[in-house]
Amino acid sequence: MRTIRFQHPEHQRVHLGLLDGNYAYSITEQVPAWTDPMPMWRALRALGVTVQEAEQRLAVGTPLDFAALEREGYLLPPVAAPEVWASGVTYERSRQARNAETQFKDSVYDRVYTASRPELFFKATGERVVAPGHAVALRSDSKWMVPEPELCVVLSAAGDVVGWTVGNDMSSRDIEGENPLYLPQAKVFAKSCSFGPLLLWNNGSQRPQDWQIELEISRGAGTAFQGAVSFSQFRRSIDELVDYLCRDNPIPDGTVLMTGTGIVPPDEFTLAHGDLIEISIDGIGVLRNPVEDLAVVASKRGVGV
Amino acid sequence: MRTIRFQHPEHQRVHLGLLDGNYAYSITEQVPAWTDPMPMWRALRALGVTVQEAEQRLAVGTPLDFAALEREGYLLPPVAAPEVWASGVTYERSRQARNAETQFKDSVYDRVYTASRPELFFKATGERVVAPGHAVALRSDSKWMVPEPELCVVLSAAGDVVGWTVGNDMSSRDIEGENPLYLPQAKVFAKSCSFGPLLLWNNGSQRPQDWQIELEISRGAGTAFQGAVSFSQFRRSIDELVDYLCRDNPIPDGTVLMTGTGIVPPDEFTLAHGDLIEISIDGIGVLRNPVEDLAVVASKRGVGV
Amino acid sequence: MRTIRFQHPEHQRVHLGLLDGNYAYSITEQVPAWTDPMPMWRALRALGVTVQEAEQRLAVGTPLDFAALEREGYLLPPVAAPEVWASGVTYERSRQARNAETQFKDSVYDRVYTASRPELFFKATGERVVAPGHAVALRSDSKWMVPEPELCVVLSAAGDVVGWTVGNDMSSRDIEGENPLYLPQAKVFAKSCSFGPLLLWNNGSQRPQDWQIELEISRGAGTAFQGAVSFSQFRRSIDELVDYLCRDNPIPDGTVLMTGTGIVPPDEFTLAHGDLIEISIDGIGVLRNPVEDLAVVASKRGVGV
Amino acid sequence: MRTIRFQHPEHQRVHLGLLDGNYAYSITEQVPAWTDPMPMWRALRALGVTVQEAEQRLAVGTPLDFAALEREGYLLPPVAAPEVWASGVTYERSRQARNAETQFKDSVYDRVYTASRPELFFKATGERVVAPGHAVALRSDSKWMVPEPELCVVLSAAGDVVGWTVGNDMSSRDIEGENPLYLPQAKVFAKSCSFGPLLLWNNGSQRPQDWQIELEISRGAGTAFQGAVSFSQFRRSIDELVDYLCRDNPIPDGTVLMTGTGIVPPDEFTLAHGDLIEISIDGIGVLRNPVEDLAVVASKRGVGV
Repeated sequence: MRTIRFQHPEHQRVHLGLLDGNYAYSITEQVPAWTDPMPMWRALRALGVTVQEAEQRLAVGTPLDFAALEREGYLLPPVAAPEVWASGVTYERSRQARNAETQFKDSVYDRVYTASRPELFFKATGERVVAPGHAVALRSDSKWMVPEPELCVVLSAAGDVVGWTVGNDMSSRDIEGENPLYLPQAKVFAKSCSFGPLLLWNNGSQRPQDWQIELEISRGAGTAFQGAVSFSQFRRSIDELVDYLCRDNPIPDGTVLMTGTGIVPPDEFTLAHGDLIEISIDGIGVLRNPVEDLAVVASKRGVGV
Repeated sequence: MRTIRFQHPEHQRVHLGLLDGNYAYSITEQVPAWTDPMPMWRALRALGVTVQEAEQRLAVGTPLDFAALEREGYLLPPVAAPEVWASGVTYERSRQARNAETQFKDSVYDRVYTASRPELFFKATGERVVAPGHAVALRSDSKWMVPEPELCVVLSAAGDVVGWTVGNDMSSRDIEGENPLYLPQAKVFAKSCSFGPLLLWNNGSQRPQDWQIELEISRGAGTAFQGAVSFSQFRRSIDELVDYLCRDNPIPDGTVLMTGTGIVPPDEFTLAHGDLIEISIDGIGVLRNPVEDLAVVASKRGVGV
Repeated sequence: MRTIRFQHPEHQRVHLGLLDGNYAYSITEQVPAWTDPMPMWRALRALGVTVQEAEQRLAVGTPLDFAALEREGYLLPPVAAPEVWASGVTYERSRQARNAETQFKDSVYDRVYTASRPELFFKATGERVVAPGHAVALRSDSKWMVPEPELCVVLSAAGDVVGWTVGNDMSSRDIEGENPLYLPQAKVFAKSCSFGPLLLWNNGSQRPQDWQIELEISRGAGTAFQGAVSFSQFRRSIDELVDYLCRDNPIPDGTVLMTGTGIVPPDEFTLAHGDLIEISIDGIGVLRNPVEDLAVVASKRGVGV
Repeated sequence: MRTIRFQHPEHQRVHLGLLDGNYAYSITEQVPAWTDPMPMWRALRALGVTVQEAEQRLAVGTPLDFAALEREGYLLPPVAAPEVWASGVTYERSRQARNAETQFKDSVYDRVYTASRPELFFKATGERVVAPGHAVALRSDSKWMVPEPELCVVLSAAGDVVGWTVGNDMSSRDIEGENPLYLPQAKVFAKSCSFGPLLLWNNGSQRPQDWQIELEISRGAGTAFQGAVSFSQFRRSIDELVDYLCRDNPIPDGTVLMTGTGIVPPDEFTLAHGDLIEISIDGIGVLRNPVEDLAVVASKRGVGV
């Protein structure tokens, strides 16, 4: 079962939708309190209803066109995550990349790559998350920026894996490279986090290790970068990351954990305003975010608050 | 003007209170929507009412006994901060201490101490903040823990300094010492952040650089550690920290910024369950937090969710 | 299935509970968003889960003692009804009683008793509802007051009968008798409406026409009044009342409709402060409300807001 | 000082606005928590700021065009009234009209006109209020409908007169005429209540008794009815109505009391779909509501929920 969240074009309220091919059925029309997957997930568990049964039951009503919802900017993050956490150096490629950017000789990245405790950091509050299809931004004081395409895990407060989605952890390589203590500034800034648009529900039989994630960055008419990585190259297990995340740290229902990147553009690459970032995972979907275009931003100034 | 927030003993609702000596007047009884200083601060600004005028107007109604509110556990953080951020290595003492704990030779702390960009990190969401008087906790996987007594600045979304309070940034020295990338885990954990109980409102004439902060840790009948530092030893300016915090990073109204510590117990010191931590700043007040007593915690288990 | 709502003694939050004999299981511990029956009812419908299946699934966790919850004042209305509506003159006994109290010769009550359109009126907003076990009040300007024991229907926004509960529609006979235009003042006043504590869920097989409602009013050590009526004497059908209620009048989910009374104490009877009113319907439960004791009210004055 | 509430065209949030001629200044841009006059009114009182001082202070920022807000349907009721109450038979004209419509000989209207206790009834919950400029409706089962143009008083929970606005209490004359017990059905139905768009704040010096209210009903290119009445003909005092309303009946802050009508079209008049109702009070403003056009309503069916 794959669900989305969207601003309903007619009702101007947030709806939870069930995806069936290119059709989206409003779950919220049937259960008004379900505008987010978490209360629905809790209800299924308590009532002993499987993900498969729910999917069959809820594909009713007048379907909406998913492509139209995406095209017209109605999509929202698939879960109203109160918090987004992220992990790093979970692929060999990431270790190399971060060693390349750092100005320090004694590598904190080599050390964490082999240590039992992973790198975990606070990526975003819910308010900082950019909806799928909307523009992510570049830090004004960074000259070296990349998207980090990542598999995202949606967690319950107890650490259960509710499902998976596609994420973009926008990062400044030069600010972090200057000093590992600047990591929060390299990672947390306006419009630096996006995930979605689809949530693939955990039905107990999917195998993330068989999946592959792909990144394509378009610039003008061409392709500025393209890359892919298989999750078989993921150095840690998701259980291990969740275990450390929840250790002495109560997380809220619907927390999103970004699991780190294995795709890093070459060192001479940096994002430019107007680029289009597309990240896809087979069986989940495609997350598209343009990079904020400064001319558009400037034209909106002066209009109001 | 100094205000508090508290759970009203009779009405079982959050109230904002004005402190006058040992008396607390409920501001919320007069303006029910003011259960937090931020909407009141915005109203004063828009109406052109000074902090001094407001203080005179609002000291009405039946006063409550502040000491009783504190003793009976009714106090709350003085602002419902959606986010708490913190800075580090803002005093020479902190630089020494962090060099002492690190396992790396090439010091990220020396570098940040002299760099123009300060260390800033996400310390806590509002839900993670411990009310004044309530117990802070030790990370179960750390053997070297300290309180960090800090001057806290309460900020508007635009970075205005609304006022100041006293803060405790609980930290694990061994986890951070193992790798600077573990900073979020050394800093963000259950019950690791407390501030209050008083908010001293900025009236434009106070001089934080003249203040002094003191820390006393009691264990059993004795004193386990005692220390003090003057804000004249603060290496950065608050404006500078706020400037970097707000750079490309929209913060919500009522954000608390902890400004870093200048008091570090000797390296052989670590907090123990049952300790009492008292942090005071003259002219603001005293923040008291016991360290969670595991026997008490265990006795509460099994009672319910 | 019978459910209750209560203030959880430990968590100090509203919980929805499933009643099993004298035990109450917290449904909210399993599904935090279910603090009211309506979202749960909508979920069951959408997922095709029957009331009987839900009852079996949800009787898990540590049970609480229902009698203790009632005794200690933790019970709440079984549905957080945004609106309470009521009907009148739905029994022959009510027609007689209202003819007896009126000062007008030309009877509006005779007319409505036989008309196709029933009497319907707005009884209470959610804020005006008194929790089961808590005190109802007498109008200070009335000398002739009675409880009206009524079968209550809990409705969805579409008029579906979600379930039934027991209600007390406190009424002033002299104010209404003075002029039918004073009905709203005779019916809507502080603490004039209570219902609960149990909600019997509609499973499609119950037969309200077989039920009986009983009223007992205790005064001091004795019984001031006792009466009973069978729903077989109900002159209208519930469908008919719901149909008129919803005609050109959108009601919110969880609306309570009180269906009118068939038990009226003799004309010389009026309630007194300190009386205890008990209304019961077999198979649903007993609603108990003391009548506010003025001495107790006076002693609380001066304590605060 | 006159304020409005509106959906801000750019921010898509409710704003409170200060009216200055044809300009509206957003108060909410200065104090985000003020999206309704009541919290602002409480703040002014507590801080000792007069209505005149507030008006001068708050006329800042970029003004919006009031006529455009009205024309494009952005206006909202000037106070988010949780409850609307109404009074009746407060003018001689109303007594005559209601005697004309009743099927009973023994007049409840004559009686209430001279009695000390006024007629008061619950008119609408906040959700039932129609915004200024939006369509009011006719009951589908009534053949005799009129608007009732009324002076509305905005009240604090303590019964203070915060200000005044213009109201339309849509009524069915035949349903009420059939039986006074049907008053709630004649008065409370979908889209039966509107008030606004301006709130004139009480500054202690206005004299409502000098005002006049006017009603004009346009049909097609012509005028279907026109009438006016002076408040000098108001039979009761507003204090008296408020006193009875608040007797044993706690009302919420921002309650609106409609004070009864003195303008009644001739008995042969009934509203038609497509009519435009305009009600004005000099010094306050003009409330405009079209009567729902059934053709428009039908064309919207089938579009969705």
